[in-house]
Amino acid sequence: MIKRALISVSDKSGIVDFAKSLAELGVEIISTGGTAKLLRDSGVKAVDVSDITSFPECLDGRVKTLHPAIHGGILAIRDNKTHMDTIKEQGITPIDLVVINLYPFKETILKEGVTLEEAIENIDIGGPTMLRSAAKNYRDVTVVVNPEDYQPILSEIKDNGDTLMETRYQLALKVFRHTSHYDTLIASYLGKNSNDFPETLTLTYEKLQDLRYGENPHQRAAYYRQVENIEGGLTAGIQLQGKELSFNNINDANGALQLLKEFQEPTVVAIKHTNPCGVVSGSSIHEAYIKAYKADPQSIFGGIIAANEIIDGATAKDMMEIFLEVIIAPDFTADALEIFKKKKNIRLIKLQDIKKGPTKNYDIKRVSGGILIQDENLELFQELRRVTANKPTDTEMEDLLFAYKVVKHTKSNGIVIAKNKQTLAIGPGQSSRIWALENAIKNSPHPLKGSVLASDAFFPFKDCVEAAAKAGIAAIIQPGGSKKDEESIEACDEAGIAMIFTGMRHFKH
Amino acid sequence: MIKRALISVSDKSGIVDFAKSLAELGVEIISTGGTAKLLRDSGVKAVDVSDITSFPECLDGRVKTLHPAIHGGILAIRDNKTHMDTIKEQGITPIDLVVINLYPFKETILKEGVTLEEAIENIDIGGPTMLRSAAKNYRDVTVVVNPEDYQPILSEIKDNGDTLMETRYQLALKVFRHTSHYDTLIASYLGKNSNDFPETLTLTYEKLQDLRYGENPHQRAAYYRQVENIEGGLTAGIQLQGKELSFNNINDANGALQLLKEFQEPTVVAIKHTNPCGVVSGSSIHEAYIKAYKADPQSIFGGIIAANEIIDGATAKDMMEIFLEVIIAPDFTADALEIFKKKKNIRLIKLQDIKKGPTKNYDIKRVSGGILIQDENLELFQELRRVTANKPTDTEMEDLLFAYKVVKHTKSNGIVIAKNKQTLAIGPGQSSRIWALENAIKNSPHPLKGSVLASDAFFPFKDCVEAAAKAGIAAIIQPGGSKKDEESIEACDEAGIAMIFTGMRHFKH
Repeated sequence: MIKRALISVSDKSGIVDFAKSLAELGVEIISTGGTAKLLRDSGVKAVDVSDITSFPECLDGRVKTLHPAIHGGILAIRDNKTHMDTIKEQGITPIDLVVINLYPFKETILKEGVTLEEAIENIDIGGPTMLRSAAKNYRDVTVVVNPEDYQPILSEIKDNGDTLMETRYQLALKVFRHTSHYDTLIASYLGKNSNDFPETLTLTYEKLQDLRYGENPHQRAAYYRQVENIEGGLTAGIQLQGKELSFNNINDANGALQLLKEFQEPTVVAIKHTNPCGVVSGSSIHEAYIKAYKADPQSIFGGIIAANEIIDGATAKDMMEIFLEVIIAPDFTADALEIFKKKKNIRLIKLQDIKKGPTKNYDIKRVSGGILIQDENLELFQELRRVTANKPTDTEMEDLLFAYKVVKHTKSNGIVIAKNKQTLAIGPGQSSRIWALENAIKNSPHPLKGSVLASDAFFPFKDCVEAAAKAGIAAIIQPGGSKKDEESIEACDEAGIAMIFTGMRHFKH
Repeated sequence: MIKRALISVSDKSGIVDFAKSLAELGVEIISTGGTAKLLRDSGVKAVDVSDITSFPECLDGRVKTLHPAIHGGILAIRDNKTHMDTIKEQGITPIDLVVINLYPFKETILKEGVTLEEAIENIDIGGPTMLRSAAKNYRDVTVVVNPEDYQPILSEIKDNGDTLMETRYQLALKVFRHTSHYDTLIASYLGKNSNDFPETLTLTYEKLQDLRYGENPHQRAAYYRQVENIEGGLTAGIQLQGKELSFNNINDANGALQLLKEFQEPTVVAIKHTNPCGVVSGSSIHEAYIKAYKADPQSIFGGIIAANEIIDGATAKDMMEIFLEVIIAPDFTADALEIFKKKKNIRLIKLQDIKKGPTKNYDIKRVSGGILIQDENLELFQELRRVTANKPTDTEMEDLLFAYKVVKHTKSNGIVIAKNKQTLAIGPGQSSRIWALENAIKNSPHPLKGSVLASDAFFPFKDCVEAAAKAGIAAIIQPGGSKKDEESIEACDEAGIAMIFTGMRHFKH
């Protein structure tokens, strides 16, 4: 039986109606500060917490509810005679319903220019304590942290005279999901300048959407975003049209975006099964798209496209010629949107800050029973050291860097062959480097003579150089660092190939 | 200046010495229940919290510190005259140091057979509140949640007469890392029967070790384990010898373990760059290892081996013949350990419950600005439907299921060819299925006639069947579901190949 409710909310939406309905059901309402005033102004009778505690609201509200008269009323176990005798002796009356939401810490830290002091002031102490007290005693107490629960709970009280035990359990679960989220945001805010990996690592996310299924139809899945630091990230994207994004769409789109961020000039990236299949930098997005399509007209089918400048009508028209799953761009012209409307299923994602450099962030790999966490891979090379007699031309050097950016985002072992800032051949994900190279050459629809080759890690043997020479490759970029580097260098010199060592490996799995 | 300390600890290690030293420095000590008794028994003077609050410790200790006399003393801002006047009026004295650790919720839920009631009783309410109060007011208050900090703080007080502001900030950060971890464990415990993806998802981990670097040397990294539900998971493994595990070791070991768990008979899995390169089920681990080596003697070099039964001396001897990074097994015989000692660098991991079926758990993929989360892929097929005139023999059927288990753990698009429960060819990670199939065939050192082929997703065209027929493949297993299934079935019938549809796709990226 709910006789007494404590209501103290920062987000006041729906609270007046809820309180009115409770009052009509004969529930006595206790409240604090702004909430009490709002309720009274709306004609709902509310007792002040300070009348219950006989202690003034003071210290700018910092301690108003931290009192045994409140917490005894919440925490006393109703079927424990000692508990009930004790609170009676102390003049404490049970509180059966606790309705609280917290100081807006998240909203505060997301405000531009927020100071540390403001953030700290918005760390709620009393609110989480009452929520946690009530949740701990969920067998006897109903606790509501989310305004969306007002109506269902009201209905339940009306129907059953009380809330159900299972409901109270679920509400308690919601509380701890909320307080853990809340304190994780605080820790993350206070720790944002910390560079260590802490002893306990807690990560928190907000759901963007449930997904129809996961990587495969028999796996359930959902898509979450982090709270801070999302500008230019995939989760800041807005879907303008098309079918619901799938798990694999999002995963591929992420691969496309990460690769795209390597480039400042107009660039188009095509991704299939998380690997690039066509990447081109050009003088315009339209030109880059046409060349990205031609890079591998077979693999792009059913792929994901990301462009770092606005997509116009002419580009849209060409994109309509083939089946694409997703197109991501900073924006689309009205013309382009009109054209895409004819294919209702194609997913368009607008990501305004798409050129924003990758924010310093972490990468996670799930392993069974835990996670691996690492810095994102935001660097490209440590040095650019020519190790061969032959020098790459300026154009070749540009192409080498272009190809190196692409291979950095290709699954290891990976090989990328490019010319004029267009990928001509991509060999991803092999256990042997020579296989990756052979696959790239074999599956390329292009003549490779005069093109350049990038490898994400060193050549263990000179066989890679020999195969490259046979294909007519003019220049190679790779980290170097193998015991047999000298053999590869000699093979380059024999074949007239220029080779650059970067001193930086780019495994990606 | 630290004049008054509140000490209330569940983990009492080091507390007596710390309190003694504080008392010697003239700090007045306030304490509760068991901590107060311990301090007094050890000759440290301690005032009872109930003397401060003039409120009895009651309700089984549920509300002892939830009082303005405590929280006013913690939360009052020292350079705010109104705050200080108010607490003076109320007879409240400032508390400058708060030393708290919490009811052992984690230890409680990890105990076998723990009841919900016990778990709930071990949710600390007063402790987190004092920690959070003190952390919020870190400008004026020092808060210590970790006994490891007793000594450094004592030194700092001795050296400077007080703690430093930066220290107090770091201690406040530790508090919120701790409370978020604590409440996440509670939410996760209460929610363990919930099947939904909650609106806010908070995940928490404990650090196992910092790693030398991440996927590449320029990325920092660490390895964390989840708190619950780790039996049989990689993080439950114990390293018996060898160099420190690297990020890529752990990632590969995870791939090996997930695949290994598909098998109950003696099985050896070899992984290179997260893809299987040799998998064999045999009558013994020794036999399985020899055949796994022979499956692809080139790729296994520098790879990771996982075996689901004890590794004996004979097997160890053979393993010593080549360079392996990591070997995982439920155990190693004394003989085997003796033999491995000769290669000090080789990492041996003992994982007792290695055969324990995969626990229902989640898989995470990091995307920029968020995560994708999904059920782990724990199923194999929905049906085993023969779609061709030809029937697979019983042996072929066993091999088809064997190969299907392997391809499930191969990066998509993936193809696996096997015979007699030995992989003969593996083609991982291609944007085109026919390329994956061609790569598998091209790179295999084995005659493939009479072997079986598994594909992780359907054949979009009949070219895959045609290539399989040319290689002499006897039977195929794949999900089915392409518009052009009929063409592939016809091609099988023409070539005398048996084909099974599973109705279940296994993309892995």
